[in-house]
Amino acid sequence: MSTPSATATSRLTLADVLAGHARARPDRVALADGDLHLTWRELSARVAKLAGALTADGVGPGARVLWLGQNSFRLEEMLLACSLIGAGFCPGNWRQTPDELAFAIDDLAPQVVVWQAEEVGATVEAARAVSTAAADAHWLVHDRDGADSYESYLAKGHAIVADADVGSDTAVLFIYTAAFGGRPNAAMLSNRALIAQGLLMAPWSGIDDGYVFLNSGPLFHIGTFMPNLSTFVAGGTNVFVRRSDGEELCATIERERCTGGFIIGPMVDAVVAANADGRYDLSSFRGLRGHEAFDAMVQPDRSLWGRRAGGYGQTEVMGMATFNLLAARATGTHGRPSPLVELRVVGPDDEELAPGQVGEIVVRGLTVMNGYWNRIELNERRSRDGWHHTNDLGRFETDGSFSFIGPKTRMLKSAAENIYPAEVEGALRAHPAVADAAIIGVPDDRWVQSVKAIVVLRDGEVATAEELIEHCRERIASYKKPRAVEFVDALPRQEFAVDYDELDRRFGGGGYPGGTTRSA
Amino acid sequence: MSTPSATATSRLTLADVLAGHARARPDRVALADGDLHLTWRELSARVAKLAGALTADGVGPGARVLWLGQNSFRLEEMLLACSLIGAGFCPGNWRQTPDELAFAIDDLAPQVVVWQAEEVGATVEAARAVSTAAADAHWLVHDRDGADSYESYLAKGHAIVADADVGSDTAVLFIYTAAFGGRPNAAMLSNRALIAQGLLMAPWSGIDDGYVFLNSGPLFHIGTFMPNLSTFVAGGTNVFVRRSDGEELCATIERERCTGGFIIGPMVDAVVAANADGRYDLSSFRGLRGHEAFDAMVQPDRSLWGRRAGGYGQTEVMGMATFNLLAARATGTHGRPSPLVELRVVGPDDEELAPGQVGEIVVRGLTVMNGYWNRIELNERRSRDGWHHTNDLGRFETDGSFSFIGPKTRMLKSAAENIYPAEVEGALRAHPAVADAAIIGVPDDRWVQSVKAIVVLRDGEVATAEELIEHCRERIASYKKPRAVEFVDALPRQEFAVDYDELDRRFGGGGYPGGTTRSA
Repeated sequence: MSTPSATATSRLTLADVLAGHARARPDRVALADGDLHLTWRELSARVAKLAGALTADGVGPGARVLWLGQNSFRLEEMLLACSLIGAGFCPGNWRQTPDELAFAIDDLAPQVVVWQAEEVGATVEAARAVSTAAADAHWLVHDRDGADSYESYLAKGHAIVADADVGSDTAVLFIYTAAFGGRPNAAMLSNRALIAQGLLMAPWSGIDDGYVFLNSGPLFHIGTFMPNLSTFVAGGTNVFVRRSDGEELCATIERERCTGGFIIGPMVDAVVAANADGRYDLSSFRGLRGHEAFDAMVQPDRSLWGRRAGGYGQTEVMGMATFNLLAARATGTHGRPSPLVELRVVGPDDEELAPGQVGEIVVRGLTVMNGYWNRIELNERRSRDGWHHTNDLGRFETDGSFSFIGPKTRMLKSAAENIYPAEVEGALRAHPAVADAAIIGVPDDRWVQSVKAIVVLRDGEVATAEELIEHCRERIASYKKPRAVEFVDALPRQEFAVDYDELDRRFGGGGYPGGTTRSA
Repeated sequence: MSTPSATATSRLTLADVLAGHARARPDRVALADGDLHLTWRELSARVAKLAGALTADGVGPGARVLWLGQNSFRLEEMLLACSLIGAGFCPGNWRQTPDELAFAIDDLAPQVVVWQAEEVGATVEAARAVSTAAADAHWLVHDRDGADSYESYLAKGHAIVADADVGSDTAVLFIYTAAFGGRPNAAMLSNRALIAQGLLMAPWSGIDDGYVFLNSGPLFHIGTFMPNLSTFVAGGTNVFVRRSDGEELCATIERERCTGGFIIGPMVDAVVAANADGRYDLSSFRGLRGHEAFDAMVQPDRSLWGRRAGGYGQTEVMGMATFNLLAARATGTHGRPSPLVELRVVGPDDEELAPGQVGEIVVRGLTVMNGYWNRIELNERRSRDGWHHTNDLGRFETDGSFSFIGPKTRMLKSAAENIYPAEVEGALRAHPAVADAAIIGVPDDRWVQSVKAIVVLRDGEVATAEELIEHCRERIASYKKPRAVEFVDALPRQEFAVDYDELDRRFGGGGYPGGTTRSA
């Protein structure tokens, strides 16, 4: 008479959601791409055939399918087919160099690669030539006809139904995340994580089965995938465009009557410029963009006004772990934790810290990844004690709201106190004369380490070391303030990340607790 | 290099949600009951001590705690303590007779019983006297002081932290469901099911961390537990009243500034009557009740107007499996399926039926129960092929919307056709002269069975058998229409359910496919 654990009856996968929509709204449009429109019934039938083709090709549970192309309805279709058979689907970053793409191919060792000839073909061909694992994969081109095309592969498939061995917890979406000073890692996200995050966020953006989402950001980032999945789970329409061209976005919004889209930064200007003469009717679009001319072209949903977007997150937690809209009138800068996770701030020994103290953010819950693909040791380290260690720093405020501080690249030690460079750097950057800043630890016989700041001043601005140290003392605990300041013209970087090893060499850094950098 | 399944990092229990609220909104009120108000921090501390007391008492994973009392903040507190240690919590139906309560005690075999002296005490004492399992339980009285009181038990506990062996899928809430013609069964609902349903439904009712929900319906039914859990997950305040007295509801709404509550049917009239002179300020209440005088006393949230409540569900699927608000302008009577589940309509051999066909409703997904407590054979039958068989009948319409038909008590056979009494009875009840109706099958040499209707006419109304048969022929497939009609003054019943066995005896029923009734 023991309590049984969950059985197969608790299962829900993306493919199950698709099957539900094919029953509940069979004739509504699920996916749109150019002239093509697939209803839920049609999409379900194509996915069943595609899954059958994959199965016949030996692609089964645990296998990987890599997408090397721009946005397309076929990207979503392949994700759903992978969900049906228990395989993992990875949308690769086609903006990378051939060497970077080759790394992803070799690391993922996919059974199937779907690639795109137009625009992306040359890079893919170059990557294929240098990859060692490329020869083991079945390569399908999605935007050309022929024997090796995606469409002829799908056409030969015999429709299959959902496999009983696939569950909610099966990893289905693999997304490579940036790593500072190391190789990228593919975060494996489960059906459960995708569905839960999609469901949670849908009502906050007014997403229901009448929503038409324009997938105008790259789907190899989680940012576009979150509203895509909200729209999918709610039974709305996902619309795909290959590239974020202002003219094409306007034409697509008008043609498909899009109600939302991933349009940020320069793309807002591009849309405004393309529609300067008002030739496009964008009145279906409900979202505000904080751009006067843009907002005048669309019809924002008043019920969504005043909701603060954003929060703290990373790909490993399905994009978002805290939300600003959960913390109106709060002192923290990044809202409150998602109801889908429990989030703690811990010290170097994984002990929970009190409000006001900065430490590493750890998370567990429904949206946390299953781990990184093919990184056994890293997974053990990052998921120790049953908590996903984000490698990011944060702080709970005394009102329970949350502030994200920055990436936890390394930690300094001053006597018994832990000092995180990101926190000190944040204080320095708040000074009007400071353009950029980095913190290193210099070995100190008495205090273990002393804090040294490397600072870049803004053009034409002046500030003394004493002035900057006093500035920090007013803002953070005194033991965290720099003891010395060095001024440089620019910080050394690898890619976008500050090269701390180089700074250590140039300015005498060393003596870090636990040895070297503790980055992932 | 296989795909790992979810690890401990994906866990989220009610106790984890509590821990999150204690960090994110420590000083807001979590529970209110009379003069008592517990903040999230205080509640978290009490739950940790209660869990420690249970653990010291030998109550661990898989154990059961039975609550025999009315609504109280301690009911919620004990549910959370059970979540923390992996035990199951069952709110018993205190309105039952001593024999019925004794059945629940013997069936559940709880390690701990919490009971209430006031109002419920006499019934509980009588049940305890006849129960054989009562002597094996630790009995705690929650509304009296003394050595055997809930409060002294809690006071002796040493606070513990969450147990690593408890997971999202662990069953935590046991609710007995009515059974027609059989014994009640306790549906075991997991942390996952409770959290998912609470999250899904919260935004539809405007529930956020400023919401104050009045628990004014009995918590041994899932109906009150759904908004309770939405409020809990969102971080709002749950307010408890022991009984639904009009005066007390008014006073509590005014005192706690309640924004919502489980106030239906006669309780709406009772609130209106108690506040006829407008002495209570109910302006905090946001919900409409479709009662002119009530709605004039409160301030309904306009953003929620026009949302159609209701749908199809049962305790076994955490209350709701379809929602009317997912199907504006649809032909079905019960909305569309919840995005948390996949729902099918199947025939006698579990084959999926086409739209328009009536069959058994089967469900799988995040809100489906883990099974019934201590019902191995029933669980195997009801969860065959990985689908929870609801024992209810439904139909998808051609527009994908859904209609619930009625309970699948038994099935008739006419040649190769299956006939469900509930469908024919529904057609008969649509006739203006019909007050009540039941359908039985009479053995037929040629057609296996023929359909016979037993009909109760409304006072003063007349209708012939021919007229009623023709009425059915116009509404349902001809083979389903009654071949004969018998008129009676009243249908025989057991409790609320029609006694079909008695009807078979009196009117010659028999020859059912598969032998006898296929009810649960």
